[in-house]
Amino acid sequence: MKEFNDLASFKPEQIVELLRLAKQLEESPEPRALEGKVLALLFLSPSLRTLASFQAAMTRLGGGSFVISPNMSIHGLETRPGIVMDGVAAEHIREAVPVIASYGDAIGIRAFAERRNLEDDLDDKEYMALRELCDIPLINMESAINHPCQSLADWKTMDDLEIPANGGKFVLTWAFHPRALPLAVPAATVHMAAMRGMDVTVLRPDGFELPDSIMHKARKAAAASGGSVEETSDRASALNGAHVVYAKSWSATRHYGDRPADEDLRRGLENWCVDESWFDTGADDCRFMHCLPVRRGVVVTDRVLDGPRSIVIQEARNRMYAQMAVLHKMLGPTP
Amino acid sequence: MKEFNDLASFKPEQIVELLRLAKQLEESPEPRALEGKVLALLFLSPSLRTLASFQAAMTRLGGGSFVISPNMSIHGLETRPGIVMDGVAAEHIREAVPVIASYGDAIGIRAFAERRNLEDDLDDKEYMALRELCDIPLINMESAINHPCQSLADWKTMDDLEIPANGGKFVLTWAFHPRALPLAVPAATVHMAAMRGMDVTVLRPDGFELPDSIMHKARKAAAASGGSVEETSDRASALNGAHVVYAKSWSATRHYGDRPADEDLRRGLENWCVDESWFDTGADDCRFMHCLPVRRGVVVTDRVLDGPRSIVIQEARNRMYAQMAVLHKMLGPTP
Amino acid sequence: MKEFNDLASFKPEQIVELLRLAKQLEESPEPRALEGKVLALLFLSPSLRTLASFQAAMTRLGGGSFVISPNMSIHGLETRPGIVMDGVAAEHIREAVPVIASYGDAIGIRAFAERRNLEDDLDDKEYMALRELCDIPLINMESAINHPCQSLADWKTMDDLEIPANGGKFVLTWAFHPRALPLAVPAATVHMAAMRGMDVTVLRPDGFELPDSIMHKARKAAAASGGSVEETSDRASALNGAHVVYAKSWSATRHYGDRPADEDLRRGLENWCVDESWFDTGADDCRFMHCLPVRRGVVVTDRVLDGPRSIVIQEARNRMYAQMAVLHKMLGPTP
Repeated sequence: MKEFNDLASFKPEQIVELLRLAKQLEESPEPRALEGKVLALLFLSPSLRTLASFQAAMTRLGGGSFVISPNMSIHGLETRPGIVMDGVAAEHIREAVPVIASYGDAIGIRAFAERRNLEDDLDDKEYMALRELCDIPLINMESAINHPCQSLADWKTMDDLEIPANGGKFVLTWAFHPRALPLAVPAATVHMAAMRGMDVTVLRPDGFELPDSIMHKARKAAAASGGSVEETSDRASALNGAHVVYAKSWSATRHYGDRPADEDLRRGLENWCVDESWFDTGADDCRFMHCLPVRRGVVVTDRVLDGPRSIVIQEARNRMYAQMAVLHKMLGPTP
Repeated sequence: MKEFNDLASFKPEQIVELLRLAKQLEESPEPRALEGKVLALLFLSPSLRTLASFQAAMTRLGGGSFVISPNMSIHGLETRPGIVMDGVAAEHIREAVPVIASYGDAIGIRAFAERRNLEDDLDDKEYMALRELCDIPLINMESAINHPCQSLADWKTMDDLEIPANGGKFVLTWAFHPRALPLAVPAATVHMAAMRGMDVTVLRPDGFELPDSIMHKARKAAAASGGSVEETSDRASALNGAHVVYAKSWSATRHYGDRPADEDLRRGLENWCVDESWFDTGADDCRFMHCLPVRRGVVVTDRVLDGPRSIVIQEARNRMYAQMAVLHKMLGPTP
Repeated sequence: MKEFNDLASFKPEQIVELLRLAKQLEESPEPRALEGKVLALLFLSPSLRTLASFQAAMTRLGGGSFVISPNMSIHGLETRPGIVMDGVAAEHIREAVPVIASYGDAIGIRAFAERRNLEDDLDDKEYMALRELCDIPLINMESAINHPCQSLADWKTMDDLEIPANGGKFVLTWAFHPRALPLAVPAATVHMAAMRGMDVTVLRPDGFELPDSIMHKARKAAAASGGSVEETSDRASALNGAHVVYAKSWSATRHYGDRPADEDLRRGLENWCVDESWFDTGADDCRFMHCLPVRRGVVVTDRVLDGPRSIVIQEARNRMYAQMAVLHKMLGPTP
C-alpha cells in the first residue's frame, strides 16, 4: 500500500481485509513487526487523538515515530509557491516536506482546510500539493475534505458492535457549534457509511446542505454497496428507525470562509444539540457517534454522551487499531 | 500493580521489593521486557525530570510512550463538570482522559494543586476525579498532595548511599522561595522518610506548619516502621545530628491561595537558604537533598549544591530506575 | 567514541571509517543494535532536521530518545553562573544538563551562538561550558562555531555522488539574507571540504571575510589532506571550474552582534543570490549545496533549488545516516 488518502481508492473487499487485520492486531500483538521502521508525522494543524494514536500504533508494532509541527522550525514554514522569502518564514514547505519524508519509511500529514475557496477545499488542493512532495508511503491524517483514518476506525467500531451494514440506518446529523468547522469529517463519514452498505441520511438545517460533489461520491459508493444516501431537514423522518446518530458540525458552503455570514446563518440553531429525545423513534440500541473533540451541552448533552448509547471512546480507541493495520500493510513484512 | 498513586497504599515490604527491582534493572538491563507496550503521559502541569525520565524508562525496557499536554488540543481542555462548552475550550477532560488512556497500557498523570481550596488539595480532589476516568494502570506523576515517584527515588538514593534507616535523622526543612509552592513534595517526603523508619524533623518558620492530615499520615507510618516525626521552628536542635537535610519550599496554609498574604508572611525569611553552616552539627557525611528544580542562592547556596554533600543529581537519576521498577511491575511479564 | 564535537578531533581515516559505517547502516539496517539505549536531546535553539533525524536515527537502531527544550521547564532555564535566582527562571542549567544526561547513554546538545562577543563564539565558550556538565558521550548538534553532523553528512553526500575529493573544487559562497546569521556552518564547512582534500574557495563580498582562526584551521586541514584554501571576492574566478557551490549566509565579524551595522554592510548585496548563471563556467554537473533551511529567491533561485544541480535533500537525508554511524560507534556493541 503506497497511500492511504481516501477510502474511495480501495475496493470494499480491501477495506474488509484491512479491518480484519486491525482486529487481528488488536487481539494478537506483533511487537516486532515494524522494528527499526520510522513514521514521520507532520502536523500543520492541531491534534490530540491523531498525535497520540499514531505514536502508540508505531510503538505497538515495534517501530517509532517523530513529530514535526511548523512552530519547531525557525520562524515557521512558508507555503506559497514562487515567493521571495524575505519576510519572517525561513523555510519553505518544498524543502521541509521532502526532508521530513527522507527520514521516514512512511509519512502522515495533517492539513486542515484553509477555508478561503470552496472549490480548492473540495479538490483537496493543499493536501494534493503536499502529496506531490512525498516519495514515500503517505497517510492522510485529515485534510480539507477527507479523514480516512477516522472513517476506517468508525467502520471498525460499527463492526465490533455488530451494527447492521446492509439494512442499517445511519444518520449523519449537523449539530450546532459556535464556529464554522471544516467539511472533512462529514464528507468522509457519509461516504464511509454508504460504502459500508448502510442507508444514510444527512440531516441538516436548510442552508447547511453538503456540496454536490460530496453527495455524489457517497451515492456512487452506495450504488456499489447496496446502500442509499438521502438528505433532509426533517428531523422526525430522519431519526425514525436509526441505528446510528453520528453528530458533527460543519460550515455552510454558500458563504464559505465568510465567518460573519456563517454565524448569521447558524443563529437560532442552538436546538441542534443531540439529546435523548432524538432517540425516541430510533432502533433499539441506537448508538451515538462523534469523532471528537466534542462540545458538551452544545453538540450533544452530557446525558447522551455519558450514557450507554455513546460509543465515542471506542471510536477513538479504534483509531489506533485501524492505523496499525494501515501501517502494517504499508511497512510490514510481505506475507 | 494497578496503581502507583501513594506510597501509603503499599506495605513496607512491597516498597523494599520495588526498590530491589529498581536496583536490579539499573544493573541488569531488560531491553525487551516491555516490547510493544505503551505508556501514555498526560501533563496538565509543566515538567522536565518527569517528562524525560518516564520516556527514558520506557525505552530502556523496550516499550515506548507518548506525551500529551493541553496546548496540543484545539483551544485547550475544559475541566469543569456539567458546563455548556460554548467558550474557548473545544474538548472536555471527560473525553480526553479516557481517549488518551485507551491508547496506553498504563497512564501517568501530572496535575499540580490548583491552590484554591486547601481541603480539596489535601484530599487530592482533582487527581482523584481524573483517576475515575482511567481504566488502565495509573501512575501519579505529581498531584496536589503527592509525588510517589519522587519519594521512591529518594528512598532508593538513601539506600544506595547507605544512609541509615532506623536511627537515621532526616530533616525536611522549609526554604525561602519568591513564590508560594504546592504541598505535594513536603507531604510525600515526610511520609516517605517516616515509612523508611527514620527520625523525621520538619523544620519550618512559624506560620508554615504542615497541615494536620499530612503530619498524621506521617506519624502513622512512623509508628509502624519504628521511626518518629516531629515539627519545630528551632533550627539548631533540628539540624543537630542530621543525616539528611532535605530542603523544599511550600506555601503557608493559613492564607492558602492568597498570594499577597503568603508573600507578607514570607517577608524577612530570606535567611532560610541552606548554607554550609547548617551542617556544622550534623552527622559526618550529612547529605543535602532536593527534588529539583531548585533556585540557587535562594533555597540553597551554590557551595552546598556544588559540593560533595549534594546528592540531587543521584535523586533525579533514580527517578528513572524507580519508575522502571513500577512500570515493570505494572506491565512486565508475570514472574 | 566519547565525543563528536568537531571533525578536527578525528584523523581522516577515522572519518572515512565513520562514513563507511554510515553507508553500511544505510544499506543493511541494524534494528536491534541499540536496543534499550537512550539518546537525550537538549535543544537550546530551534531545530527541524536535527530534531527529526536524531529521533529517526535512534529508532532505526532499535533505541529511543527524548527531547528537552527550555520552555518545557517551569519558567525556563537560567544559564548565568553564580546568580541569585530570585527572578523568573526556576532551574539552572547546572542542574538541568546533568539531570538530562543522567537519563541518557549519550546526549546531543544544540546551542547557537549568542553573538554578543566574537572571541567567545570563536572559542565556542558556551558549548564548552555545557560540555563540562556532561559525563556521558556528547554530540554537538550545532554550537556557536561548529556543526560536525552537518559536515559529516555533507562529506557523505559528496562521496555518494562521486564528487572528486583531491582535485575537486569546492566553493563556499556567502549569500544574501535579511538577518545576520551565525558562523557555525561556514566554519564547519570550509574545514570539512579542506579535510576531504578539496581545493576550497571562500567567496564573499568585502567585509564578510571569515575570521582568521577559521581560515587557519581549514588551511591546516588542507595541508594534511593535499587540499587548499583561499578566499576571494571575485565571483568569476571563484566559480570557474567549480564542482560544488555551497551557499550560506553569515554575519560580518567587524560589527559582530551589532545588527544595524551589519544590516548597513549588507545593503546592496541582494545580488548574492545563487542563480543558474553562477554555474556557467563550473565543471560539468556542478552541484548546489546548502544545509537548509534556505530562503528561496533570497539565497538561491527556485530554478537552481528545484533543478537537477541541487542536492540539498540528499544532504538532509544523510544527516540521519551520518548520525547513525556516530551513535553506533558511541553506543553500539563493541566489535
